[in-house]
Amino acid sequence: MAVNLAPPEPASLHPVAGIELGVAMAGIRKAGRRDLLLMRLAPGATTAGVFTRNRFCAAPVILARRHLASGRAPRALVVNTGNANAGTGLDGLTRALAVCAGVASELGCAVEQVLPYSTGVIMEPLPVERVLAGIPAAFADLDADNWAAAAQAIMTTDTVPKAFSRRVRLSGGEVTVTGIAKGAGMIRPDMATMLSFIATDARVAQPELASMVREAAERSFNCITVDGDTSTNDAFTLIATGASGVAATAKSDLAALSHAVEQVAALLAQAVVRDGEGATKFVTIQVEGGGSREECRLVAYAIAHSPLVKTAFFASDPNLGRILAAIGYAGIPDLDVSRVELYLDEVLVAANGGRHPDYREELGAEVLAKQEFTVRAVLNRGSASSTLWTCDLSFDYVKINAEYRT
Amino acid sequence: MAVNLAPPEPASLHPVAGIELGVAMAGIRKAGRRDLLLMRLAPGATTAGVFTRNRFCAAPVILARRHLASGRAPRALVVNTGNANAGTGLDGLTRALAVCAGVASELGCAVEQVLPYSTGVIMEPLPVERVLAGIPAAFADLDADNWAAAAQAIMTTDTVPKAFSRRVRLSGGEVTVTGIAKGAGMIRPDMATMLSFIATDARVAQPELASMVREAAERSFNCITVDGDTSTNDAFTLIATGASGVAATAKSDLAALSHAVEQVAALLAQAVVRDGEGATKFVTIQVEGGGSREECRLVAYAIAHSPLVKTAFFASDPNLGRILAAIGYAGIPDLDVSRVELYLDEVLVAANGGRHPDYREELGAEVLAKQEFTVRAVLNRGSASSTLWTCDLSFDYVKINAEYRT
Repeated sequence: MAVNLAPPEPASLHPVAGIELGVAMAGIRKAGRRDLLLMRLAPGATTAGVFTRNRFCAAPVILARRHLASGRAPRALVVNTGNANAGTGLDGLTRALAVCAGVASELGCAVEQVLPYSTGVIMEPLPVERVLAGIPAAFADLDADNWAAAAQAIMTTDTVPKAFSRRVRLSGGEVTVTGIAKGAGMIRPDMATMLSFIATDARVAQPELASMVREAAERSFNCITVDGDTSTNDAFTLIATGASGVAATAKSDLAALSHAVEQVAALLAQAVVRDGEGATKFVTIQVEGGGSREECRLVAYAIAHSPLVKTAFFASDPNLGRILAAIGYAGIPDLDVSRVELYLDEVLVAANGGRHPDYREELGAEVLAKQEFTVRAVLNRGSASSTLWTCDLSFDYVKINAEYRT
Repeated sequence: MAVNLAPPEPASLHPVAGIELGVAMAGIRKAGRRDLLLMRLAPGATTAGVFTRNRFCAAPVILARRHLASGRAPRALVVNTGNANAGTGLDGLTRALAVCAGVASELGCAVEQVLPYSTGVIMEPLPVERVLAGIPAAFADLDADNWAAAAQAIMTTDTVPKAFSRRVRLSGGEVTVTGIAKGAGMIRPDMATMLSFIATDARVAQPELASMVREAAERSFNCITVDGDTSTNDAFTLIATGASGVAATAKSDLAALSHAVEQVAALLAQAVVRDGEGATKFVTIQVEGGGSREECRLVAYAIAHSPLVKTAFFASDPNLGRILAAIGYAGIPDLDVSRVELYLDEVLVAANGGRHPDYREELGAEVLAKQEFTVRAVLNRGSASSTLWTCDLSFDYVKINAEYRT
């Protein structure tokens, strides 16, 4: 059902020197599915991440933040699906720590050098003994060529695994950027989407990597929304192993690498929307001519979160007054609606506070019948702009979320 | 499909001396349904109203505000369904004015003494000639006993007409308060719900009536949400005809009358939620122990607008971590989640940042299986509180809104 999203060709996913991935079936929520992912990093790799701002953030988020801040370079990442270990209080922290300890003892590193990630049902205790029992199998499976299996192992309600890869030439030679992500619902990232891991074999110092992950998040995962629900477990982690021997230190090299990371992150973020729960349409919301980026984002989110707009997208019904209504309540108190222009792709729908005289319903219907289109609102009050990617609201969204735990 | 909401018994709706109501079939959108309502007010009646804050507010909203501000006492209200006359620019204003002029000439009053209201599809031109053609029939139908027909005539996607009536004893004698409302979708009032009209035969001076309507809105229509979409046409109007000869001037009388108006307004507001598009559950969201009323409202709206929480309500699935997640992203930056308590009716679900040790899934499931229940979040950081009424998100919400114009 995903919108123009095919599973990645394994051959298209370049391995990243200095990273091995292993998956296992730990039976965390259901038996017989790969639900545990281990990533082993070569010594010398640098790691940076951004995490959800949800106050009820999950125990693994708290711990991963703390471990990253410890100053000890991470040697492993461990990811489970089926259980978010969120809304689990102190007990949740203990369980996440036990998982890190299990990985650390297997690998022979400090507990602080293991970053934990969880995704799945909230407010249920993590079955830590099952996770621990699965770790040896994940270790045994470690392989640099395992990106496709890793993308598969972190899925929950996703219908398509999400992985992209790029090569980029820096002054010292070619490097690789490969990443995976999962997410389909509870998507309105406030720092990053549910889970994404991107790695490069370039050598990048930690402070530059930290800027790079923040900027990439800002232009990718922070530009998507499915249902407006910011997850408790959002985490986006960027790893630079340095194993290629090519360092990104010059400004131009950092910019080129940053661009490649952003490209992979944007493809992954868009893939999350394309695979949004029940999605049948992929919609770009572009707001231009605003007084500030913040007010453009207010308008874009108002449109993207309106259940009325989203159901009209689903129905391919150009009931476009609903978009005007959303612009009107977005929260710009002095918005002059007579200056607002609304476009569907290239079709000018509204201007001067109402329907444009040349607009005809068939033109709007033609755009909305497509699987991908752009809603563009021009506010004509400044030069700021903002872009969001979102999807429609269908019967299947309700079905998926009404039946999530059954 | 409405939740515990029966059509009003016509006999339960007390007429209000000084007000007559007439309905007609004007064929505005569809033939053969009553879609035009006229209310004639006796000379000497005072009127006050609150209106949507949506910047794309409808032409009739702009005009009704302007006419109320003119200082000339309104003598008639005219309401059409089928077309919202919103997102229609200057042309929309001209059309709304033409409707007022038509009523004024029939009634023999000034154009400013007619208040117009519209509800229905946005961004389509109001068929003003059809409205005008229907006015004589509405006049011919004028009757003080027509409240039930009036409640019926203003419905759009409503499945049940909404009307309530109260009698209250003031020091000078008994007075009546009767009101009607419409609304089922695009409901997240920012001043009032889509359309509501409440009238009393008490005599109330305009300034006191204006406070009364604001306070009643604050405790009724401003406490409901169906889908978070603030309408372009919200309007809540309160009329005091004075025709009973009983004046509300003493503080105690004003308080008693205000209480009765609030009761009717709250019943109407709750009726809008009970009849929310596709609603199968009526849910009260109560947030307590907040640092301010505003932050309690943030949390209450986050819960009430989360599609994940709403679909869990629909499924009667106590997937209550979704509520914790919504509390966590509501926007209180320094919220200490370890102090938050979450209750479903009397069942304590979460405390100390996680599931309460005594909580069992069956207890939550039992509450969620009910058609009405209360979600209570205690923040334990102050003494402010806020209550919202909302409903679930079902297949039928998507169906109704995907097929709204077909």
